[in-house]
Amino acid sequence: MSERFDLIVLGAGSGGLSVAQRGAKLGARVAMFDADALGGTCVNRGCVPKKAMWYAAQMADMHRLAIDIGFETTPMQLDWARFRDLRNRYIAGIRERYAIRLDTAGIRVITDAARLISADTVVTAQGMQVSAPHIVIATGARPRRLDIPGFELGMLSDDVFTLDACPRHIAIVGGGYVAVEFACMLHGLGCSVDLLVREHVLAGFDRELVDALVSQMQTRGIRIVRDTWIKAAHGNPGAITLETIGGIEHGVYDAVLWAVGRVPNSGGIGLERLGVACDQEGRVRVDAFQNTNVPGIYAIGDVTDRRALTPVAVAAGRALATRLVGGHADAKFDDSAIPSVVFADPPLGTVGLTEDQARARHGDAVSVYSGRYTPLLMMVAGHSEQSVVKLVCVGDERKVVGIHVLGPGSDELLQGFAIALQKGLYWRDLKEAIAIHPTAAEELLLLH
Amino acid sequence: MSERFDLIVLGAGSGGLSVAQRGAKLGARVAMFDADALGGTCVNRGCVPKKAMWYAAQMADMHRLAIDIGFETTPMQLDWARFRDLRNRYIAGIRERYAIRLDTAGIRVITDAARLISADTVVTAQGMQVSAPHIVIATGARPRRLDIPGFELGMLSDDVFTLDACPRHIAIVGGGYVAVEFACMLHGLGCSVDLLVREHVLAGFDRELVDALVSQMQTRGIRIVRDTWIKAAHGNPGAITLETIGGIEHGVYDAVLWAVGRVPNSGGIGLERLGVACDQEGRVRVDAFQNTNVPGIYAIGDVTDRRALTPVAVAAGRALATRLVGGHADAKFDDSAIPSVVFADPPLGTVGLTEDQARARHGDAVSVYSGRYTPLLMMVAGHSEQSVVKLVCVGDERKVVGIHVLGPGSDELLQGFAIALQKGLYWRDLKEAIAIHPTAAEELLLLH
Repeated sequence: MSERFDLIVLGAGSGGLSVAQRGAKLGARVAMFDADALGGTCVNRGCVPKKAMWYAAQMADMHRLAIDIGFETTPMQLDWARFRDLRNRYIAGIRERYAIRLDTAGIRVITDAARLISADTVVTAQGMQVSAPHIVIATGARPRRLDIPGFELGMLSDDVFTLDACPRHIAIVGGGYVAVEFACMLHGLGCSVDLLVREHVLAGFDRELVDALVSQMQTRGIRIVRDTWIKAAHGNPGAITLETIGGIEHGVYDAVLWAVGRVPNSGGIGLERLGVACDQEGRVRVDAFQNTNVPGIYAIGDVTDRRALTPVAVAAGRALATRLVGGHADAKFDDSAIPSVVFADPPLGTVGLTEDQARARHGDAVSVYSGRYTPLLMMVAGHSEQSVVKLVCVGDERKVVGIHVLGPGSDELLQGFAIALQKGLYWRDLKEAIAIHPTAAEELLLLH
Repeated sequence: MSERFDLIVLGAGSGGLSVAQRGAKLGARVAMFDADALGGTCVNRGCVPKKAMWYAAQMADMHRLAIDIGFETTPMQLDWARFRDLRNRYIAGIRERYAIRLDTAGIRVITDAARLISADTVVTAQGMQVSAPHIVIATGARPRRLDIPGFELGMLSDDVFTLDACPRHIAIVGGGYVAVEFACMLHGLGCSVDLLVREHVLAGFDRELVDALVSQMQTRGIRIVRDTWIKAAHGNPGAITLETIGGIEHGVYDAVLWAVGRVPNSGGIGLERLGVACDQEGRVRVDAFQNTNVPGIYAIGDVTDRRALTPVAVAAGRALATRLVGGHADAKFDDSAIPSVVFADPPLGTVGLTEDQARARHGDAVSVYSGRYTPLLMMVAGHSEQSVVKLVCVGDERKVVGIHVLGPGSDELLQGFAIALQKGLYWRDLKEAIAIHPTAAEELLLLH
């Protein structure tokens, strides 16, 4: 016999926590299943440890810059094991607070995987059976593995966070944001980095800014090799070479990181048997309301075919709970302009359309305002790295449809502009705004 | 005989440059007078060298934090003379670029002070006489001097930028943003700091955030003494004591910084004789269009009774030129919500009404959303400093009328939110926005 709830959630990551907590707050009896730690990818193997490592790399960078502005100092070395332990302690604290919050909210948390046996019932490996009129799939995604010889010689992104020393010379295979972020972070912490890219670096981001970032990465000493399709890894742990389909050999590396995309955790949870539709990559297809094609089954977060970002999963979870439990039949979230930041060095922020996307959609109605400047601190240090700010506008009124920023401060400055863009922002609004001086943010007001 | 121009500008600071350049661009023949360096306070003795010093102090702070997240390193010492020279070189570069830009624009720059002898004519000390239908006073302000014994034993803010070593133990007299910024910067760079305040620290800023900043400054070791009215300084350069009106003695200090306000440079330029009205502090009274009470004479920037901020002077200068030269009779700038950042450690950002101002104006219609959090990096380092984010809203629709932020990242995150506020921002806009995770900026979206 099934225990009955109002809402079942598979997965305790950002999306699952979001829908469960909002659901419980609105009065639903919620059961949440996850065999792994609370917090999912973001907290345990994603955003959070990544951002901590980004800060460490920024500090190491700042330290080098400090010498150039007149500080007398000796080189700075990160004790990786100590940093990892501090980071893990912080993450354990987050999980503890989640557990308390879930308990306080009366959410039933079952530390076990569950699979659907019907559109309203799930069962765990231990045989526990639970039913609810609404089941939310929030099982997330995991790093992609390639079916090539020697793959196991390399690491996945998850593994980098367990290292107790910095690799000396690493190959990072991939060109997405995970690859780029790790390339910058590891290089910042003193590792020699080869970034081996199949086709594009940061496909989908504005080309002009990506080119500027790539150029800065190269200037700093990151080796970027394009048109590189790896067909095998050879050697032993600690001494690895990579072979391309063209027969070129890269290495020897003491470490290899495969950052070749992510795959949804949509298998083995009963979706096939119920006929829940997925795309070619296995991502659960959802509509704007997070409905799958099967009534009563919904999906949110990285397991879906929507943008794989924590805040998107959170927004989706909240909207879904508001609809299913709160009775707001039209609750959904607006994903027309999702801001995001690549925590590279320097960071790259983007919201709305790239120039290419805008031209494809709006043709000659597009106007672009792009500017470069060397930040004050870099100028004082005698460096020449240029930050880039770019507005993509449409129409005679020059409505802003895209904002793209590269350089120190881009990580924090974008959020407010993204909200303004969402509300309807015009080029003249930026010209008429009062600047905050001297900042990176004000550069967006100076474009003409 | 007078040489005739379309526009005369007294002062080559941020405001003067702004009105001169916009005027020239719109076709005016412009003459600009300043006995001192191009760039005025902001470039030479204000925002720019201050921000550079703030960065240096941030680096020193970061270095201490680095040790707490696992970096092995030795203490870091700033070579003040080298840093000063690098900073000065950067500033000289800015002035050179200004000179080229002014020359290209065909603006006549006269490196001499000028005073008005009639409503349309000025004369320099050298006897050069120039007329124009429009004369703009943009002569700025300077640090206030007190008429007390021993005043000359202390420095003004201008002087700090000329030092070639960090003071060991300084008294900073004052409670405004200049005093607070120098207190944080000098402390960050290794100086022992006493901040001696008459009444309030950062009067006019939101109390809750000021209290939090004060508390963090004290925790870091800055000694803040309130109700302290200094009546005399005693001793010799390098060994100074300060005496209060109550007879209490502070010190011995090797340096004293008087940061007791600023006074407008409105004297000695002929304003009195022409009957140009000033307030009690000597600031030129202007209306929303920068008109003084005398037709043909205008004023912008720190010499006026409007907000003394570079971007305000710039906006005023542009609007004025657009009106006088561009023929847009209604051109003025919107000063209803001027954002600003105090470059303290951590920085404090503010736009719109404080909670107290909102309650005084809107009474019970005010709702306040305030939150505290310890930033990720601080948590990892085992620190407990809390950042503060605060929204001041009005009415049932909870229109945002004030945004106040304290903590790392506040310097860059505020600009975009300020623009959104200016355009009309509601609490629900923030709740519905997609966050950028993990950032300081997203904390403004999490308030409830």
